[in-house]
Amino acid sequence: MPAVTTVESRFGNEGGFGLANLPYGAFSADGRPPRIGVAIGEFVLDLAPALGDEVFTAPVLNPFLAQGRGAWAEARRRITELLSDDSADLAPYLIPRQQVLMSLPIEVADYADFYSSEHHARNVGNMFRPGADPLPDNWKHLPAGYHGRAGTVVVSGTPVVRPCGQFRSGEAVVFGAEPRLDVEAEVGFVVGMPSRPGEPVTTAEFRDHVFGMVLLNDWSARAIQAWEYAPLGPFLGKSFATSISPWVVPFEALAAAWVPAPKQDPVPLDYLTGRHGALDLRLEIVWNTTVVSRPPFRQMYWTPAQQLAHLTVNGAALRTGDLFASGTVSGPERDQRGSFLELSWNGTEQIHLDDGGTRTFLSDGDTVSIRGRARGPAGSWIDLGEVVGTVVPSITSER
Amino acid sequence: MPAVTTVESRFGNEGGFGLANLPYGAFSADGRPPRIGVAIGEFVLDLAPALGDEVFTAPVLNPFLAQGRGAWAEARRRITELLSDDSADLAPYLIPRQQVLMSLPIEVADYADFYSSEHHARNVGNMFRPGADPLPDNWKHLPAGYHGRAGTVVVSGTPVVRPCGQFRSGEAVVFGAEPRLDVEAEVGFVVGMPSRPGEPVTTAEFRDHVFGMVLLNDWSARAIQAWEYAPLGPFLGKSFATSISPWVVPFEALAAAWVPAPKQDPVPLDYLTGRHGALDLRLEIVWNTTVVSRPPFRQMYWTPAQQLAHLTVNGAALRTGDLFASGTVSGPERDQRGSFLELSWNGTEQIHLDDGGTRTFLSDGDTVSIRGRARGPAGSWIDLGEVVGTVVPSITSER
Repeated sequence: MPAVTTVESRFGNEGGFGLANLPYGAFSADGRPPRIGVAIGEFVLDLAPALGDEVFTAPVLNPFLAQGRGAWAEARRRITELLSDDSADLAPYLIPRQQVLMSLPIEVADYADFYSSEHHARNVGNMFRPGADPLPDNWKHLPAGYHGRAGTVVVSGTPVVRPCGQFRSGEAVVFGAEPRLDVEAEVGFVVGMPSRPGEPVTTAEFRDHVFGMVLLNDWSARAIQAWEYAPLGPFLGKSFATSISPWVVPFEALAAAWVPAPKQDPVPLDYLTGRHGALDLRLEIVWNTTVVSRPPFRQMYWTPAQQLAHLTVNGAALRTGDLFASGTVSGPERDQRGSFLELSWNGTEQIHLDDGGTRTFLSDGDTVSIRGRARGPAGSWIDLGEVVGTVVPSITSER
Repeated sequence: MPAVTTVESRFGNEGGFGLANLPYGAFSADGRPPRIGVAIGEFVLDLAPALGDEVFTAPVLNPFLAQGRGAWAEARRRITELLSDDSADLAPYLIPRQQVLMSLPIEVADYADFYSSEHHARNVGNMFRPGADPLPDNWKHLPAGYHGRAGTVVVSGTPVVRPCGQFRSGEAVVFGAEPRLDVEAEVGFVVGMPSRPGEPVTTAEFRDHVFGMVLLNDWSARAIQAWEYAPLGPFLGKSFATSISPWVVPFEALAAAWVPAPKQDPVPLDYLTGRHGALDLRLEIVWNTTVVSRPPFRQMYWTPAQQLAHLTVNGAALRTGDLFASGTVSGPERDQRGSFLELSWNGTEQIHLDDGGTRTFLSDGDTVSIRGRARGPAGSWIDLGEVVGTVVPSITSER
């Protein structure tokens, strides 16, 4: 009987990290500095020696991303060829994923966050402005967004220290540890190719600039946020930690995940139209061991290409390493809501966990994982990995 | 008669760029890449060869800033010694300032902008919410702020392309070139020493982390901003260009400029108290050739050290190159307002220029300079330089 080698048998249980995926990350092994690898099955392929390309000795993806779409395609072609070649001796370049430490895959330039789920925006409006129109006037005219803190974007696994700050407690304004710590399940988009100042990027140019995607947890301090946000928007309520998954899934792996963009009424201004689509990504939020929500990304009102076109329409230039996120992904059903604010309806409804515990917002010691998958070729699934974080108590300083 | 050499006679008309100042910038000459120099009189001192220190061969100040306060003091001591030594042959290290091109002095990590002038906040409140309390509820409890776009911070002299975007025109939502382009006269603070995640920086630690200051023009597209800002704050209305002065004035030059912080009522929470002061900086806004305003910085309600303490109280880490700005500096008098929005009272009052022209907001071709000075030793003045920009027409793309 002839030997049949499959990806599974050569690289272990692929679990969505097969040849159709090939996500990039920054890993370190044996105490050496981080470098760039691609996940395949249960292994990391150490790209610099495997491809003989110095660009992958960098500790972050930025130098590779800056090379542009042609280089991204060529690297993928070579990696696919190498991994498909049964005669290649890959042993020197393969490291078990269990033996590596993942670090932040990109040096984040600017981080912007959008607010593009209509279900999320309506939930928030209904909670905080009952009786009024839940959507702000501008919401269906533009993908609303704001800039976040790039320096506090951290890789999955980084502990999240419960932030301190000021907030209202009844009529008083008090200082303390955030009592209503929350998550927001989002998708983040990683810019590779920069753009020139003053030159907007059209929806059709999305793929020329955006390399890939990550899962993102926009940790949110709701009491701090509620007190600070008018009129300048979210600031300290969001700037203590934003976690991203370690494996950046390139758009080349997501060809089968594109679906038609949702119908928009009113039809937006010209610069927000053109060629663009939605992505069929399925997320899950796991609170300790309980799956508490399954947000569907394809129902987002504004698409990633529209977000990018809006971000740059004023002439703002893109830089390699820019990260922009979708905003909380919430579907129409209760068990599709992307934040605990919504799942607990502003703390008024208990969320039940498998261990018998109940929650409204996060307790110290809680772990939240957001994981996801996307449609792959021929009915397969592309694993988007996961972004995970554990809440640790506030630092009560004696300084 | 013995030869008397003074700074003036050795280095030309110092104009506030004397031995007591010594601001740092990134310059290029003779087509070579940018490197770090210090301004003295009519010259730039080329620091790498003058001090024999490689750190000044970098194109930005960041590597020097990252060395910390001890290194900043030591460099200043050596520069002062060198420039005071009549016997030193400095000719090889001095380049006329007229012959150099200045570039962005820092690689900006995160850019945050505050809103700390009570006069400005009251003016805005009175214009847009007449009859109501002009200050938001939280305004006297915390220095309100938001994150801006670090990638569109540009050096003085960079042309400012009038941004396009969407805004309201009567009942309609339209796309076009911003009709109400404005300036905001601000002071920016440059972070040198990073801080650790989860560890707030106290007001007393301000000088350990913040190296110096620049003048900053937070160009603002008022029609875009008015339509987009609720509920997430300023975004595209601010992210097309933020200009800073090329010469970073170190706090070591500003010892005589500190004055007591203004009295605050209510007394803020503990983390916003402690040792901190206000800065007596005098700004001027020049519209083409007309001085239209003289905003006084010392009257800002929230001090720079309070802004820094607030920015980090949630555990957000500082990085070398972080930039935070004061918000528009407006005094109590009409001719002390720091934006054209206020000077023209939302476009309802004409501003008269020396050439006979009138304005409410910026016309294409207009140049705005914000310049400033600070109290120096023994009744002298420290020149803060200037930040200048000229408005160029929108790019009307055929793409």
